[in-house]
Amino acid sequence: MALRAAILSTGEELTTGKIADTNAQWLADRCFGLGIDVAAVLVVGDDRGRIRWAWERAFEAAELVLCTGGLGPTTDDLTTETVAALLGETVRFDEASADRIRQRFARMKRPMPESNLRQALFPQSATILDNPLGTARGYRVSCDREIGGACVTRHLVVMPGVPREMKPMFDERVVPWLTGLPGVGAPPVTRVFQTFGMSESALGEKVSALVGVDDARVSYRASFPKIAVKLILPGTLDDARQRIDGLAARVREALGPVVYAEGEATMEEEVGRVLGARNASVAVAESCTGGLIGHRLTDVPGSSAYFLADFVTYSNEAKVTVLGVSPQTLESFGAVSEETVREMAAGARRLSGADVAVATTGVAGPGGGTKERPVGTVCFGLDADGVRLSCRHQLWGSRDWIKLLTSQIALDWVRRWALGLPVLESGFRS
Amino acid sequence: MALRAAILSTGEELTTGKIADTNAQWLADRCFGLGIDVAAVLVVGDDRGRIRWAWERAFEAAELVLCTGGLGPTTDDLTTETVAALLGETVRFDEASADRIRQRFARMKRPMPESNLRQALFPQSATILDNPLGTARGYRVSCDREIGGACVTRHLVVMPGVPREMKPMFDERVVPWLTGLPGVGAPPVTRVFQTFGMSESALGEKVSALVGVDDARVSYRASFPKIAVKLILPGTLDDARQRIDGLAARVREALGPVVYAEGEATMEEEVGRVLGARNASVAVAESCTGGLIGHRLTDVPGSSAYFLADFVTYSNEAKVTVLGVSPQTLESFGAVSEETVREMAAGARRLSGADVAVATTGVAGPGGGTKERPVGTVCFGLDADGVRLSCRHQLWGSRDWIKLLTSQIALDWVRRWALGLPVLESGFRS
Repeated sequence: MALRAAILSTGEELTTGKIADTNAQWLADRCFGLGIDVAAVLVVGDDRGRIRWAWERAFEAAELVLCTGGLGPTTDDLTTETVAALLGETVRFDEASADRIRQRFARMKRPMPESNLRQALFPQSATILDNPLGTARGYRVSCDREIGGACVTRHLVVMPGVPREMKPMFDERVVPWLTGLPGVGAPPVTRVFQTFGMSESALGEKVSALVGVDDARVSYRASFPKIAVKLILPGTLDDARQRIDGLAARVREALGPVVYAEGEATMEEEVGRVLGARNASVAVAESCTGGLIGHRLTDVPGSSAYFLADFVTYSNEAKVTVLGVSPQTLESFGAVSEETVREMAAGARRLSGADVAVATTGVAGPGGGTKERPVGTVCFGLDADGVRLSCRHQLWGSRDWIKLLTSQIALDWVRRWALGLPVLESGFRS
Repeated sequence: MALRAAILSTGEELTTGKIADTNAQWLADRCFGLGIDVAAVLVVGDDRGRIRWAWERAFEAAELVLCTGGLGPTTDDLTTETVAALLGETVRFDEASADRIRQRFARMKRPMPESNLRQALFPQSATILDNPLGTARGYRVSCDREIGGACVTRHLVVMPGVPREMKPMFDERVVPWLTGLPGVGAPPVTRVFQTFGMSESALGEKVSALVGVDDARVSYRASFPKIAVKLILPGTLDDARQRIDGLAARVREALGPVVYAEGEATMEEEVGRVLGARNASVAVAESCTGGLIGHRLTDVPGSSAYFLADFVTYSNEAKVTVLGVSPQTLESFGAVSEETVREMAAGARRLSGADVAVATTGVAGPGGGTKERPVGTVCFGLDADGVRLSCRHQLWGSRDWIKLLTSQIALDWVRRWALGLPVLESGFRS
């Protein structure tokens, strides 16, 4: 039977709605991958009674408690004293941890408030978990408790609430130990595919035809407009690594160009990678997306190696004076037309000297739609040596969705062009 | 004493980490505004035993339980049957709700699966809460329960998990009833200021010097790079509305141009509003922000009325050939210089014919920094009739923070210019 976990998050900022509990989501996702069953998430503010209540309820619900928060140096950081009381233990002062804290302040050339040494206190039986990124070290304890008249084993893990400190601590210090617990497999072997252009149900159909329930767990994480498909194989089997290579190859082949990256790469990172591989430069001409395509391309460090310029010609006049779109074209076919978008792409390439230029023009809404060109009508164009493509799509959704989806299709066009894949097939289909 | 609430969220997508529990955050924020004390948040998957456990624990922790999720038409939607069992009641079939569901499907011209009529089932004693946006109606129940040997009153509110259906249901159907409960005031009178350019602690100092603890509750919600300051006055007093006007006027005066909007307006919406009021058009020249300023401006519906064009000249060559920056300027002062950014702004205005142009150029990092121009060095320029401004800032943080902060300062420059406020004072100070 799978190990059950309770995730316990503490902090007034959570119970007053100041921030969302993203730690719990992250830990739940990790548990899913490890085959650990999250029985409950509990969130309470910085109050001794409530923290104690939550720990007792967590022990009731699960064998493993993953707690974040309340390890800071201030008086409203109550986790350690509450946990020690719960365990019936005193706290001990860990000299090595205190030294680390003092050294950290010395390195930053800042005086250390005495209160910071609270972070060197741990329950007597705790195994300390190092935190290379901050002064709040975590810890874990395994203990026997009487619950409902029976003596049962409970495992506690306490980590800082700051996500950038908690996440590496969990992956590096907690997972290796967790995978030795009964009911938890070795860290699973995983493979992630980033996809664009197929719905979750269509992906599910294709993948489940290839990957049996016994072969691997499959998770789908949609964050519009992309969907990540993750294959998760229990790591206990010696051949898991080999089996996942075979499965991954089959999935990649079945999904084809819809898979734009393996691992955690974004579409814009992948565009940069494939342009770099071809030693090609890119320029953009935008209208309805207003600069979003250039913004995404330049989110990638080092993008100046291939991104030259972006011409956001929002007004019709700018399309003419800046990009050289012919006034006749605009008059005969309109700003949202394949004719106009082709001239926009050609203008962007000519002006920048880029190897490839992509252009978009459309109606992002909510106003501006007509019978012929309703909200969501978007035209795409691509211009490169010997290549001149255009296409009209009917997209949907709110203004920001239409902008985002348009930018994704435009980036996918550049990726497909650079890889020699069919460009016009890009886009969302079920 | 304040009423205590427990927020209960159900759904497998939460306990497997597929999505974050944003409903709980939203409800906790609303509770904070109403003076309701959130004692705990509980999250469980779609399992009868676990849902029942969570309800019992919620009753233990609080007088009011706000539950979301599990009201759909499928067999893993277990909330209503679990609540009825918990109350010791049977469910009743509500004919009026069933009619609404049938009509909804008829309007969409889709056949209705019989299973959808599950959504017309409610615990016997439930008061139904209408849902104009979907088929999942909510409900509330007040009951007496024996907890810890005492008979106490408990209030249950059950709402759909879809945020866009849950939020209006809470505001329109739940709040008016909630404010009649002992320990809850009338809906508070609130006033929100959007600020940019002052740290949370500096804002707190200024505001707390003006607003006493007894005058109003003040909340600060930072979402980089802006901070919203909210004044919350209990609504029971007849003069709350009048008092808040006086308080708001004092806060506005004390914070000055740092307040860029009242209510929920974004910086880009506010820029659009003040440009519209002056009947002025805007153009942009970007380098390190890569299109983000244009993207933000065009996130506002109707921005084509004032936004003309954005020239993203990422390469030095594009700065020269597109915007007409002089090669001598680039050579003598570099791409990241006040001289270059002034010529970029002038070029954008000349090419677009806009009334005002704003330009940015900088080092977003993580690479590309030098001793003279470390990562985070950004130059800003503004060009308008009789106005030619520039300034160099040393910003900080990751690439995306530097891009976002740069775009915020650039937009704030346009806002300040349009309002006749000191432009060069914009930016982040403590």
